[in-house]
Amino acid sequence: MKQGLPTVLYGGDYNPDQWPETDWDDDIKVFKQADINSATINVFSWALLEPREGEYDFEKQDHIVAKLSQADFKIVMATSTAAMPAWMFKKYPDVARVDYQGRRHVFGQRHNFCPSSPNYRRLAGRLVDQLARRYAGNSHIVAWHVNNEYGGNCYCENCRRAFQEWLKQRYQTLDNLNQAWDNNVWSHTIYDWDEIQVPNELGDAWGAEGTHTIVAGLSVDYLRFQSDAMLSLYNLEKQTIEKYDKQTPILTNFHGTPNKWIDYHAWAKDQDIIAYDSYPAYDDPAYVAAFRYDLMRGLKHQPFMLMESTPSQVNWQPYSPLKRPNQMRATELQAVAHGADTVQYFQLKQAVGGSEKFHGAVISHSQRTDTRAFQEVARLGHDLKKTGADFKDAATPAKAAIVFDWSNFWAFEYVAGITQDLQYVPLILDYYRQFYQHQIPVDVIGVDDDFSQYDLIVAPVLYMVKKGLGEKISDYVQNGGHLLTTYASGMVDESDNVYLGGYPGPLSRVLGIWVEETDATVPGQTVKVAFDQSAQQYEGRLLCDQIHLTGSKTRALAHYASEFYAGTPAVVENIFGKGLAWYVGTRLDDQGLGKVIERVIDQTGLAGLTSQTTDLEITRRVKNGQELYFVLNLRNESRLLPTDLQQAGFVDILTGAAPKAKLEPWDVEILKRGMDQ
Amino acid sequence: MKQGLPTVLYGGDYNPDQWPETDWDDDIKVFKQADINSATINVFSWALLEPREGEYDFEKQDHIVAKLSQADFKIVMATSTAAMPAWMFKKYPDVARVDYQGRRHVFGQRHNFCPSSPNYRRLAGRLVDQLARRYAGNSHIVAWHVNNEYGGNCYCENCRRAFQEWLKQRYQTLDNLNQAWDNNVWSHTIYDWDEIQVPNELGDAWGAEGTHTIVAGLSVDYLRFQSDAMLSLYNLEKQTIEKYDKQTPILTNFHGTPNKWIDYHAWAKDQDIIAYDSYPAYDDPAYVAAFRYDLMRGLKHQPFMLMESTPSQVNWQPYSPLKRPNQMRATELQAVAHGADTVQYFQLKQAVGGSEKFHGAVISHSQRTDTRAFQEVARLGHDLKKTGADFKDAATPAKAAIVFDWSNFWAFEYVAGITQDLQYVPLILDYYRQFYQHQIPVDVIGVDDDFSQYDLIVAPVLYMVKKGLGEKISDYVQNGGHLLTTYASGMVDESDNVYLGGYPGPLSRVLGIWVEETDATVPGQTVKVAFDQSAQQYEGRLLCDQIHLTGSKTRALAHYASEFYAGTPAVVENIFGKGLAWYVGTRLDDQGLGKVIERVIDQTGLAGLTSQTTDLEITRRVKNGQELYFVLNLRNESRLLPTDLQQAGFVDILTGAAPKAKLEPWDVEILKRGMDQ
Amino acid sequence: MKQGLPTVLYGGDYNPDQWPETDWDDDIKVFKQADINSATINVFSWALLEPREGEYDFEKQDHIVAKLSQADFKIVMATSTAAMPAWMFKKYPDVARVDYQGRRHVFGQRHNFCPSSPNYRRLAGRLVDQLARRYAGNSHIVAWHVNNEYGGNCYCENCRRAFQEWLKQRYQTLDNLNQAWDNNVWSHTIYDWDEIQVPNELGDAWGAEGTHTIVAGLSVDYLRFQSDAMLSLYNLEKQTIEKYDKQTPILTNFHGTPNKWIDYHAWAKDQDIIAYDSYPAYDDPAYVAAFRYDLMRGLKHQPFMLMESTPSQVNWQPYSPLKRPNQMRATELQAVAHGADTVQYFQLKQAVGGSEKFHGAVISHSQRTDTRAFQEVARLGHDLKKTGADFKDAATPAKAAIVFDWSNFWAFEYVAGITQDLQYVPLILDYYRQFYQHQIPVDVIGVDDDFSQYDLIVAPVLYMVKKGLGEKISDYVQNGGHLLTTYASGMVDESDNVYLGGYPGPLSRVLGIWVEETDATVPGQTVKVAFDQSAQQYEGRLLCDQIHLTGSKTRALAHYASEFYAGTPAVVENIFGKGLAWYVGTRLDDQGLGKVIERVIDQTGLAGLTSQTTDLEITRRVKNGQELYFVLNLRNESRLLPTDLQQAGFVDILTGAAPKAKLEPWDVEILKRGMDQ
Repeated sequence: MKQGLPTVLYGGDYNPDQWPETDWDDDIKVFKQADINSATINVFSWALLEPREGEYDFEKQDHIVAKLSQADFKIVMATSTAAMPAWMFKKYPDVARVDYQGRRHVFGQRHNFCPSSPNYRRLAGRLVDQLARRYAGNSHIVAWHVNNEYGGNCYCENCRRAFQEWLKQRYQTLDNLNQAWDNNVWSHTIYDWDEIQVPNELGDAWGAEGTHTIVAGLSVDYLRFQSDAMLSLYNLEKQTIEKYDKQTPILTNFHGTPNKWIDYHAWAKDQDIIAYDSYPAYDDPAYVAAFRYDLMRGLKHQPFMLMESTPSQVNWQPYSPLKRPNQMRATELQAVAHGADTVQYFQLKQAVGGSEKFHGAVISHSQRTDTRAFQEVARLGHDLKKTGADFKDAATPAKAAIVFDWSNFWAFEYVAGITQDLQYVPLILDYYRQFYQHQIPVDVIGVDDDFSQYDLIVAPVLYMVKKGLGEKISDYVQNGGHLLTTYASGMVDESDNVYLGGYPGPLSRVLGIWVEETDATVPGQTVKVAFDQSAQQYEGRLLCDQIHLTGSKTRALAHYASEFYAGTPAVVENIFGKGLAWYVGTRLDDQGLGKVIERVIDQTGLAGLTSQTTDLEITRRVKNGQELYFVLNLRNESRLLPTDLQQAGFVDILTGAAPKAKLEPWDVEILKRGMDQ
Repeated sequence: MKQGLPTVLYGGDYNPDQWPETDWDDDIKVFKQADINSATINVFSWALLEPREGEYDFEKQDHIVAKLSQADFKIVMATSTAAMPAWMFKKYPDVARVDYQGRRHVFGQRHNFCPSSPNYRRLAGRLVDQLARRYAGNSHIVAWHVNNEYGGNCYCENCRRAFQEWLKQRYQTLDNLNQAWDNNVWSHTIYDWDEIQVPNELGDAWGAEGTHTIVAGLSVDYLRFQSDAMLSLYNLEKQTIEKYDKQTPILTNFHGTPNKWIDYHAWAKDQDIIAYDSYPAYDDPAYVAAFRYDLMRGLKHQPFMLMESTPSQVNWQPYSPLKRPNQMRATELQAVAHGADTVQYFQLKQAVGGSEKFHGAVISHSQRTDTRAFQEVARLGHDLKKTGADFKDAATPAKAAIVFDWSNFWAFEYVAGITQDLQYVPLILDYYRQFYQHQIPVDVIGVDDDFSQYDLIVAPVLYMVKKGLGEKISDYVQNGGHLLTTYASGMVDESDNVYLGGYPGPLSRVLGIWVEETDATVPGQTVKVAFDQSAQQYEGRLLCDQIHLTGSKTRALAHYASEFYAGTPAVVENIFGKGLAWYVGTRLDDQGLGKVIERVIDQTGLAGLTSQTTDLEITRRVKNGQELYFVLNLRNESRLLPTDLQQAGFVDILTGAAPKAKLEPWDVEILKRGMDQ
Repeated sequence: MKQGLPTVLYGGDYNPDQWPETDWDDDIKVFKQADINSATINVFSWALLEPREGEYDFEKQDHIVAKLSQADFKIVMATSTAAMPAWMFKKYPDVARVDYQGRRHVFGQRHNFCPSSPNYRRLAGRLVDQLARRYAGNSHIVAWHVNNEYGGNCYCENCRRAFQEWLKQRYQTLDNLNQAWDNNVWSHTIYDWDEIQVPNELGDAWGAEGTHTIVAGLSVDYLRFQSDAMLSLYNLEKQTIEKYDKQTPILTNFHGTPNKWIDYHAWAKDQDIIAYDSYPAYDDPAYVAAFRYDLMRGLKHQPFMLMESTPSQVNWQPYSPLKRPNQMRATELQAVAHGADTVQYFQLKQAVGGSEKFHGAVISHSQRTDTRAFQEVARLGHDLKKTGADFKDAATPAKAAIVFDWSNFWAFEYVAGITQDLQYVPLILDYYRQFYQHQIPVDVIGVDDDFSQYDLIVAPVLYMVKKGLGEKISDYVQNGGHLLTTYASGMVDESDNVYLGGYPGPLSRVLGIWVEETDATVPGQTVKVAFDQSAQQYEGRLLCDQIHLTGSKTRALAHYASEFYAGTPAVVENIFGKGLAWYVGTRLDDQGLGKVIERVIDQTGLAGLTSQTTDLEITRRVKNGQELYFVLNLRNESRLLPTDLQQAGFVDILTGAAPKAKLEPWDVEILKRGMDQ
């Protein structure tokens, strides 16, 4: 059992090796002004640590570690394996990836190591061994940070061979493989494992990576393999570190919106703590970041680290307007509200060169502290110092869960037909947003999680239903659970072969329906949907299932109200065993989906954290029975605090005073019930 | 002389080798419920038939053939050469194409064999030999289906060498070649055949394939060569089959909108019957499918096979909404109306895997027959059974012809300047639509067809006028024919060299004009056009020719009415010998072009199949002097039957009753004159 | 010292080697009808001149030269090295470039020689030696035209090695290089020169060429290297010619809008005369062409050659509408107005083949002279013959200068963040347009030019400020100069490393400001800007600097009037020494920027060439103290001549009469003061 973090970390990536040693004291002085207590180091120092193969030079790193330790900083020690030195590319070209276009890359960029390269594995392993042996004893190290933001795929010959081995493990025989990929179609039968090709543009895939393929079974398996191969790299490093340090948590930093290429559910078990790099775009609604945090928290059902974020602007998004006054503080505290136990920035000191030189930092190019951005950093540091003990390790209880699954993500976006507009994440967000708007806490979970602890399982576009999952869902509802699912569900097995006998395949019984066929809306078109006992009409789009009710206790909650299928069911409710299941046959607009959710809330008894309507974000963390309500005004206008939160005797732990009735733009209150509660 | 089809085929692609043998009886039972009488088999079975080089296994195929024969199905026997087994790519990498980006592909996809690969030729030839020898005697086989949907180009070294040989045949000497390609420009002179490169992105071409090149003469020749090389593959298979079977028709299936890469006129002579795969997009107007059918019928001036079509949705178009009730039946009968003697689907049974698993089929994933789609399939089967004898082999007489030419297609889309919006097919469709709207039957013909049998030849954008074509056209008009042509005509010879002395080159005399220069309209701009004796103005765009009248009997029918050339001729009529010729100097809008067509109709005496204005589609097939009028309502609203078709004593052979005066949405009537007519 | 041009050249590219020798006399007769006195020959004749390596055949070229000499044409003799013969690619594949995608090209196209290919250098040098030796004595040759339109980059192994050598020259040590590129970031430290890779898609760059890179220092250096490598090719040819001819001017033709890949300031010193190929697009406002001419004139502060232009349409732009009547003449004279001493076309005779066969020419495909286009060519020939002596060698004095710098161009467009909309040229044009609209003459100059001769230096987006430039600017203002600069200035040094201590780095003192941070506007957003003592509001966009006034004599001229920074400075004026400096913190709209310019004009005393408001273009050339006012109506509507130009006793040298008070569409007057002035 690993130890946890000793305190709430406030800090982030610090690259003193880019600066003269004479700067370091001044840097630390500035950090302390902002109550920064932690630094992540050594993220990209391989070329300095190993200037020639096998020759290691830790002198500068020793100084850095000593300096930070002396200043009593908590150190997150990275392993430097995410950017390979130039000499490595030259000596061992196989360390570089072959891209989706079939081209071997050369020195440059980062995050471009081939996961199947024996040279990369050997050299990365040896570096980490040196590093871990050297620093394992340092008590200031509170976490080991393996590599950086794993992601992306390689399509080289080494990967092709490793993929063949991976397939042998998975399928045992070519008969099994040919059946799994339905290889009789288009004469794709494989007679020798070595005939198998990687699915890049020269083979079975085409168009943008991850979007089009001839054999979805093959292509989904390739993404599984790549995720596994990357995971084995991670574990190679992890196990090397554990030779020298069995206590300190080890992790890598997850990222993405979410990251399509890494199955984070599969990776989570090997992370001692989940760490996440959060970079919402200027035009992401607030619920999008909230969803990502809930996804991260759900990976281990534990608090996570906000490992990277920007104190001001990112530099690599299309547009990075300034964060408005107090916006930075509010959005960082949003992560805390959803379960973050750290606030860390990329980065602590802004570089003068490289592709991220215009990425914001605590110490900016001006190197001044009388800036708006630094003042906000310092204020937040003060806030965290004051309140950290209250929220650290606090849980975030939820009775509803939304299912997110990477195999499904991959398979669904490979679907050829009947509309080109199939994107997984936005369709999940449709549902997440509903609960967010009602201030109902949700977990975002995987298909292997325990459903029974939830009153409601929301599984939108559950296109791929792997072996056993249909039964698991049925049992859950049978025993009194509630299921909400949608169009494009229950269609294929884990090999992407369609379930025969009628959609939604293994979900048909629990839902009491048969979907005969499905209309695709075309650009500019929507289909009307009407709920019973309501004159108002809503709009469906994307897909419109033609639904037959087959269960004896199945009924339609809404019908289509246009097209030739006007009057047929659009939304269905089924009583199944002791539970209830809902099926939404089209992509309803926000208001229409709200009608469904009202019904679901009514039947499940789920309740929001306020009884009033508000567009403040309200979440809750609970520690030792003590509830903390995070109330965030994530917009540029003021908002009134719901009166039930005003009247309950709350104290705002940020101010120590009673909550203010009005939240200014980007204001935050963290409300704890007073002692008399 | 080959035999014809024994009956109207109703059926389509069937891949029982993707299914357990135990399913087959049930499948056939379902097909029979829909009056399906035919199956196309063995389209993609190479990997099963030849699991290792030279080892053939026909056992399963024998069972399939026996089963279908026993059920008295007509069999269309495909040759399986369109998708190569994985072992072939591994053993002989040259069988795969090198793409336009210069990359050799590997195993995957289909339709990706190099036409110049000696290994592919040898292995495909040997497979077909085995197949033809084995099944030649089976009387249920009514056609041999070679390969599948030929198309696309290869740019490999084998093709480069074969291209050089092809050029030697064509040009004999390098002097001829250098002149044909005007190689003195940009120092492109060739001194050795081996210096000639294929025109892909590494050489003289750039941008999307078929759109930009330095040397159009070279690039057009390369497309000619590739079409010829593919044709030689087809004939290799055809001749192999004919060693064993000289009676049964042999063909491949044409496709596309139309297919840009295959010169179907050059291919038609080697097809015993033309077969076409028809997949109109949801937003293609009805006349677009009609045009394609007329093009197919015109290739041999004979009825054709509707070889593929979908009973419900395709899966590979951007959007595939459900066909509305009765829409499928109507659109399939549209093909029949234009000359199809079969109705065949892709496919009879929907696959569970592969890239087309969501493509519609007669037996869908639900495997149920109580579906809307299956009921429509069965209804159409009944219709065809009832009426097939009436229309099979019937002609489709037309007195007007529209010229479509692949060399022109290629050359025109390679034009650099003076607007980037030059696309051949839409400009042809401008003219086709006019006749369609007037219910005037047209043939779509090639430049080598006999013009003299037509009262009107319509040759829009006849940019490339090969040797002798100018004279042929002049003679045609001289002798009383009528010619309608446009801007961008008569500009280059067959090598894409401009005719000197003034546009439209060899068409100048017959048209009585000289086009001095041409304006290009810019986005958002149109030019006004006014017809004499009419106050209304119409709009021209794309190109606006500056026309001088040079003939003594030439006159302007319309003038530009805006820009600095207002008042100059926009549409011209010329009396030439006993005939008349019209030149339309700009891309007129539909109404403006309608004015031209009115004049053309008036002067040629062409008449529509109804004297009334209607947006029903009306076509005619004639057999043994008996006329059949196909009246199709190809829209989602009801329409009245023109009264002249109501009053002529017609019988609707679909119902056996008098025609209904009102056609419901997607309704069809096939009217035969009653016995008293 | 080279001789100048003997007269105003009127002519252009002529390729008689594409035509039978029997045509040449007729061609020359036609040219003479248009007062054409010059021809540029031998631009693409390499394949004819050297049919096999080392075998030269000048017979045809001799005939051409003799024919033109006999007709007393001035000859611009090109060297033919811009398009390599096919045999060269076959024998020496390294002569072809490797592209940004990493692919070696083959024979085809033109302008595709690798600048580091030893074979190309050897063969090109030898050809030029032959050519120069042969024709050096011909007195009709008035200029040598080296190669053609240099541009584009190569990424081959030879270039990689040559780049490493170039870097050794520049940086001496790897320590210097690692520091210059800030290579500690992302572990990019180089330990061996040979580890350095070229920045194409396989290495550090991505996306469209010139837009995205990891290491801007590396990528900017690569563009410098490529520009230098190309220049060494130019000089190889130049020096070869000078072995035989030290009098006749030598040059190549510049092109582009402007050409991004060649640093024309670095090249200018080796050009005896600047020559420019001018192809404005149909939708380029008139000031865009004016800017390009001023840029060309500024390269050597001398008149230039209008080396190419079209007498009618170009063929390679997206849309090439006809030039309206008299438009061609007006736009050619616009070049003269800005300093051109020649008017030359591409080309004199239109080719029948090749990719430019639809590019306009003096002799068109019709080969007739009774065309509108030819008549305009002839009229302009007459104009030039009449007026050439008046303007040839005339200066174009200006008291204001706009700075344009290629290193800045490259660096600025590589910027990652904080908006993706950073394009250099449009932002320069914002400022150029202002002076154009006021008829104030400007020079466009480089950063190494002498500033002291100008009353005003305008340096928009001076992002990269190389060593010494900050001081040079400060000294200039200190001594009484006026500086106008903007957002995104003073940010990085010549290696693209950010200046620490606050933006705008070395410009901070002269401007009296500190830019704390910068907002990026998002699509659809603008920020309000208000000038003091004015109620009207203007709009800023792209970037909005947050400006602190730090100088004691600094004041804000305008403030932001929206967003959270409303009320803070948007436009600043600083008194520095004896001069004034202005800083514009956002991309102001045309009206808002006009307010700034009014202030600048007021303070600098700059005056337009008319005191009245007009949208006629008015420029001035001065020769021997005699002023010529070029008044151009560059639009399709008539305009009144400003009354101060009517009343000053001017004579229009085109007509010999007093100026007309009204200029018809596309009319031109060239006004010289009468003898009594």
